[in-house]
Amino acid sequence: MSSTYGDILKLSIFGQSHGPAIGMTLDGIPAGLPVDMEKLQEFLNRRAPGQNAFSTARKEADTPEILSGILDGYTCGAPISAIIYNTNTRSGDYSLLKDCPRPGHADYPAHVKYKGYQDVAGGGHFSGRLTAPLCIAGGMCKQWLERIGIQIGAYIDSIAGIKDEPICLDTLNPDLSAIGKDFPVLNADAGKKMQEEIANAKANGDSVGGTIKCYISGLPAGLGAPMFGGMESKIAQIVYGIPAIKGLEFGSGFAGSDLRGSQNNDNYTIVDGEIKTLSNYAGGILGGITNGMPLIFRVAVKPTPSIAKEQLSVSISRNDTQILAVQGRHDPCIVPRAVPVIEAAAAIAIFDVCLQEGKFQEMMKWN
Amino acid sequence: MSSTYGDILKLSIFGQSHGPAIGMTLDGIPAGLPVDMEKLQEFLNRRAPGQNAFSTARKEADTPEILSGILDGYTCGAPISAIIYNTNTRSGDYSLLKDCPRPGHADYPAHVKYKGYQDVAGGGHFSGRLTAPLCIAGGMCKQWLERIGIQIGAYIDSIAGIKDEPICLDTLNPDLSAIGKDFPVLNADAGKKMQEEIANAKANGDSVGGTIKCYISGLPAGLGAPMFGGMESKIAQIVYGIPAIKGLEFGSGFAGSDLRGSQNNDNYTIVDGEIKTLSNYAGGILGGITNGMPLIFRVAVKPTPSIAKEQLSVSISRNDTQILAVQGRHDPCIVPRAVPVIEAAAAIAIFDVCLQEGKFQEMMKWN
Amino acid sequence: MSSTYGDILKLSIFGQSHGPAIGMTLDGIPAGLPVDMEKLQEFLNRRAPGQNAFSTARKEADTPEILSGILDGYTCGAPISAIIYNTNTRSGDYSLLKDCPRPGHADYPAHVKYKGYQDVAGGGHFSGRLTAPLCIAGGMCKQWLERIGIQIGAYIDSIAGIKDEPICLDTLNPDLSAIGKDFPVLNADAGKKMQEEIANAKANGDSVGGTIKCYISGLPAGLGAPMFGGMESKIAQIVYGIPAIKGLEFGSGFAGSDLRGSQNNDNYTIVDGEIKTLSNYAGGILGGITNGMPLIFRVAVKPTPSIAKEQLSVSISRNDTQILAVQGRHDPCIVPRAVPVIEAAAAIAIFDVCLQEGKFQEMMKWN
Amino acid sequence: MSSTYGDILKLSIFGQSHGPAIGMTLDGIPAGLPVDMEKLQEFLNRRAPGQNAFSTARKEADTPEILSGILDGYTCGAPISAIIYNTNTRSGDYSLLKDCPRPGHADYPAHVKYKGYQDVAGGGHFSGRLTAPLCIAGGMCKQWLERIGIQIGAYIDSIAGIKDEPICLDTLNPDLSAIGKDFPVLNADAGKKMQEEIANAKANGDSVGGTIKCYISGLPAGLGAPMFGGMESKIAQIVYGIPAIKGLEFGSGFAGSDLRGSQNNDNYTIVDGEIKTLSNYAGGILGGITNGMPLIFRVAVKPTPSIAKEQLSVSISRNDTQILAVQGRHDPCIVPRAVPVIEAAAAIAIFDVCLQEGKFQEMMKWN
Repeated sequence: MSSTYGDILKLSIFGQSHGPAIGMTLDGIPAGLPVDMEKLQEFLNRRAPGQNAFSTARKEADTPEILSGILDGYTCGAPISAIIYNTNTRSGDYSLLKDCPRPGHADYPAHVKYKGYQDVAGGGHFSGRLTAPLCIAGGMCKQWLERIGIQIGAYIDSIAGIKDEPICLDTLNPDLSAIGKDFPVLNADAGKKMQEEIANAKANGDSVGGTIKCYISGLPAGLGAPMFGGMESKIAQIVYGIPAIKGLEFGSGFAGSDLRGSQNNDNYTIVDGEIKTLSNYAGGILGGITNGMPLIFRVAVKPTPSIAKEQLSVSISRNDTQILAVQGRHDPCIVPRAVPVIEAAAAIAIFDVCLQEGKFQEMMKWN
Repeated sequence: MSSTYGDILKLSIFGQSHGPAIGMTLDGIPAGLPVDMEKLQEFLNRRAPGQNAFSTARKEADTPEILSGILDGYTCGAPISAIIYNTNTRSGDYSLLKDCPRPGHADYPAHVKYKGYQDVAGGGHFSGRLTAPLCIAGGMCKQWLERIGIQIGAYIDSIAGIKDEPICLDTLNPDLSAIGKDFPVLNADAGKKMQEEIANAKANGDSVGGTIKCYISGLPAGLGAPMFGGMESKIAQIVYGIPAIKGLEFGSGFAGSDLRGSQNNDNYTIVDGEIKTLSNYAGGILGGITNGMPLIFRVAVKPTPSIAKEQLSVSISRNDTQILAVQGRHDPCIVPRAVPVIEAAAAIAIFDVCLQEGKFQEMMKWN
Repeated sequence: MSSTYGDILKLSIFGQSHGPAIGMTLDGIPAGLPVDMEKLQEFLNRRAPGQNAFSTARKEADTPEILSGILDGYTCGAPISAIIYNTNTRSGDYSLLKDCPRPGHADYPAHVKYKGYQDVAGGGHFSGRLTAPLCIAGGMCKQWLERIGIQIGAYIDSIAGIKDEPICLDTLNPDLSAIGKDFPVLNADAGKKMQEEIANAKANGDSVGGTIKCYISGLPAGLGAPMFGGMESKIAQIVYGIPAIKGLEFGSGFAGSDLRGSQNNDNYTIVDGEIKTLSNYAGGILGGITNGMPLIFRVAVKPTPSIAKEQLSVSISRNDTQILAVQGRHDPCIVPRAVPVIEAAAAIAIFDVCLQEGKFQEMMKWN
Repeated sequence: MSSTYGDILKLSIFGQSHGPAIGMTLDGIPAGLPVDMEKLQEFLNRRAPGQNAFSTARKEADTPEILSGILDGYTCGAPISAIIYNTNTRSGDYSLLKDCPRPGHADYPAHVKYKGYQDVAGGGHFSGRLTAPLCIAGGMCKQWLERIGIQIGAYIDSIAGIKDEPICLDTLNPDLSAIGKDFPVLNADAGKKMQEEIANAKANGDSVGGTIKCYISGLPAGLGAPMFGGMESKIAQIVYGIPAIKGLEFGSGFAGSDLRGSQNNDNYTIVDGEIKTLSNYAGGILGGITNGMPLIFRVAVKPTPSIAKEQLSVSISRNDTQILAVQGRHDPCIVPRAVPVIEAAAAIAIFDVCLQEGKFQEMMKWN
């Protein structure tokens, strides 16, 4: 039950890193929505491995094969299903890991939960590769949201402690086109320093983490709900489903908890006859419901746990400690490739909320 | 659908701050579990209003009336339902807010979503008062978890930027008894400074926020699941259902994203024949599954939005700006009262995960 | 998890027959819907015990106390919660049943499942009394469906094998007003024979069962979905949640399985420019989706298992057979009281389907 | 959301009859369960088209390709996913049906719901072909249930009104091996008459329906739950998800509603120290919970709606009536092929219930 998400839409993700194929099923989508496959492929390419010097050497064209749900370029009401065959697998790399769990990886807890039957090759179902089907679903949702005027853009907020500063997006009217294309930062100079730090870590057989910021503009007020079905909960459930995410904050988040109410509250005003706020510490959400301002959240991505450096592990069979140096191709930093994944997760969550009470259908008619 | 939570257990919370009663239904609980009502009341008292100088003046004994599910002190298999009647309501305080939304509050988005039919009195269904039923459910789950050796303890990590330092809990073997009883901090001196800051804000018609840290010890390895049903997702969904929570991180969280993999990975060792880690940057979770170490998370609580200070709002009917000074009794800081709420949320999430695959039943037999 | 129902709406039912109170929470209902409490009470009275000579002697005014979700006569967006206190309980009647399960009752399987902790008094959570909260939820849904032109009417199709014949409702344009008020049959003479048969069974310390037919008119085509979320599945899940229901068929149902396709297929025609069928063997559902014709289903109600006649049971403690004659007040036939319960169940299922894709909101604007 | 099923397990079915592939994902299955692929293929062959003179001429080897979740013959904890490519499609047959809906088919309601974007070829997502993935999931669940001593067997109860009599299965200790292999009836003579009737209908360009009975033996008492999560509701939701099912009854069902309580109640006795019933009118379920007796249910299968005979339909575009004679290959009777589908549906529902409270894991250790 853990690989499914959604209230109105139902996303189900399957596959193991080195199994025959990975894929997804997306049910509950209205019929008659166009799917631009070329645009979807471009979106998937942003996440695909082997893109540049900073990502894993494993090269694989992540081209989805649509099995159902799309007919002549439009959703037909049936569940949308798509798969990507795994063509470039090297399972030999991973055979020793069954007995010797990688620090920071799911190997050991998976061993306990699945009693030794888990697929260790490439991280199995825990692999970051499973974010490819998430991007298939999210890439489509992103297209459909754009049709009703909702834009989603994420960028690298920091890598290895190097902040993407001093440039900031306007929290009231963010210009998402300011985000870099090749390396998604706002400040290209900061981006260069980040890339140096990644290269540096790689040279040392090490890895680095970072943070990603996501903006969603064009949301009307009134989407979401109080309590467990609120916007924060909806986004958190899917975002924490992405491997390596260990932190999530909305609007002013942790920094806001140091402020006084008079500083953190967003005062109201009227702009062109519409109620807006003068600041956006709330990150566009009050009481779990959108307030008509851009929705803003930030996530923490932990440093890639697979590193070439020697670490202390254990031999499960011998019940003794053992030195481990992880072999194989690994990203020294997954943050750049995680940027479209965060956009995908946000798109799925937002689209699900839009489907509630027929809001999407209602908004479609406005546009 | 937004006021329900859980996969195996189903929690449903209802009520408005100034309506006849608030309450909860908790379904899916095994029969034969004892409920210590006195201990539950002590837990609820930790959250109850009017406890000290730092919380709202509204005094109300939060004594739950059990309507079903418990017979002769034991769960009987039927859904557990309990209510608390609202006896001390002053709805007159809130009549003007229907037209003039409080900055930082759900008033405006609720107005849009519910088309003016929402209950504005006391925040209606958005009120922090709804955390009382959450604590009824969570207080019971906490008792049951204790029977299988799982302990949950939360404390104030900071208020208004004042950190609860330099004392720290051991992340490998936390001593939860070190948490203060009256004011749940580790360092009483820091606690005093926090209380001064709360009093200071109150005197200025303002409010402060803070952060809370939660430790869960005694968890076996192997609980949880990858992806959207992972421990982080499960905890996030319920924690973000608590009003005023705007940030959540697990283990090293945001700070960990600045580290290298070699620093953030927890190396393994053997302790008394069992596999343990030498550090706990993961916060007890890898791949969404517990690794047998204490589960640690931290939340950001925004400063109470209801403040006496003048703020800029709007009149919805006149579509114009309007100065607002919120009247009524309000906590200048909800962080201390939110501590047991965080424990309750964690207990519900953890108990739900324990019920998966019959793990709770299995663990019951060990104890 | 077993006492909750619904995809968009979430119904949660709680209580035991002789516990402090029974009740329900209904979440996911749009704000701004009026609730006519007087009309709701009239609906609940149709199910209430002690109404006439044919039902249990237990008299109890089933007057719901609304705890949340309704403000000034309109839904306010918060979960609707209502309870009925149990005032007339006689738990002494049932004390012996803990060891000696009643044939045809849930006593024995409940004992196994709940390990002896179950509430046996009055059938506990298995009692037909739990259909009162179902009727609170269903009575409201019925009112809201009427606002968009959807009418629901159920009647007694047979009792003890006596058929409510030869009068039939038109399957294309049923006149629901033809259903009797005091005793809901079409043919009053058949109704009298049924009542005689009930009295006869009662005099013999026995009970009788029967069948109920339900018509739903005014449904537009296009509601529902294929497969497990289809109209039949939605209705079946809630209808089989009603105690004593052991059969359910749609349209021509079992009789239709004896026919040829050319007989059972409903040919199409055009009536006033709209596509209609010339017959209604499908019961208004094709492929899980409404076809714009009246939705028709029929349920089988088993004879009340609690009978005064001696039956063979067992003593669980002695692990030996034992003669049992069930004491206490019991309906010799629950079919008449089950009629509004079937309507309530249908109303909840249909309303949930109407909420999908915002169809209810869309239809509200037409009316 | 309509193509998913299950509480602990999550089954998701996708595909259209003439799309690239059909398939399923089955999540929530414990790791370490063996899958006998040969046995699974034998099970699928029972449903496959083109098997004999009585089924559709479309010949297609329904050989599933496992994409994930099974490693070296055992479940590995990841979602199980499998697809069947559609190799023998003739979409030209169906092009006219977009404007002229087949009586008795989902064509017209699907057209309304999906606004003309639905896939009409071969019935699209509504096709009986979608029962193949259901059989993949169900065939696995059936294997796993057998490992804990639970057997499932279904057979043809009637076709075109010809009853499979006078032979009956013992409702207390059914001998499932008495069911015929080639044509699953108890009485081979009755089976011959049924086959003649099918041939007769086919010769007339017509079709016939029938009923199927299903027995599940080896169930322990105490599985299931009261109300909407009861065994009847669980089975009903999935069974009504199968195309063409229009009726479902448990135990004595509709016939039982004609009886008196003293006739329909199953008296208790002790057999070898265990509590059993002397009859099985309840069909093994009381209060939604198994009572340790065989679970018995019967379904009504409507006659295949696709018939060569002329019928009255409409042209949607011309808004006028039109004569239709359905072309293409169609089963004159789907009942024989539906028998394994019913077993599959039952297996999935029962397995899901067994997973609740860890019962399956508990039972695995007994065997």
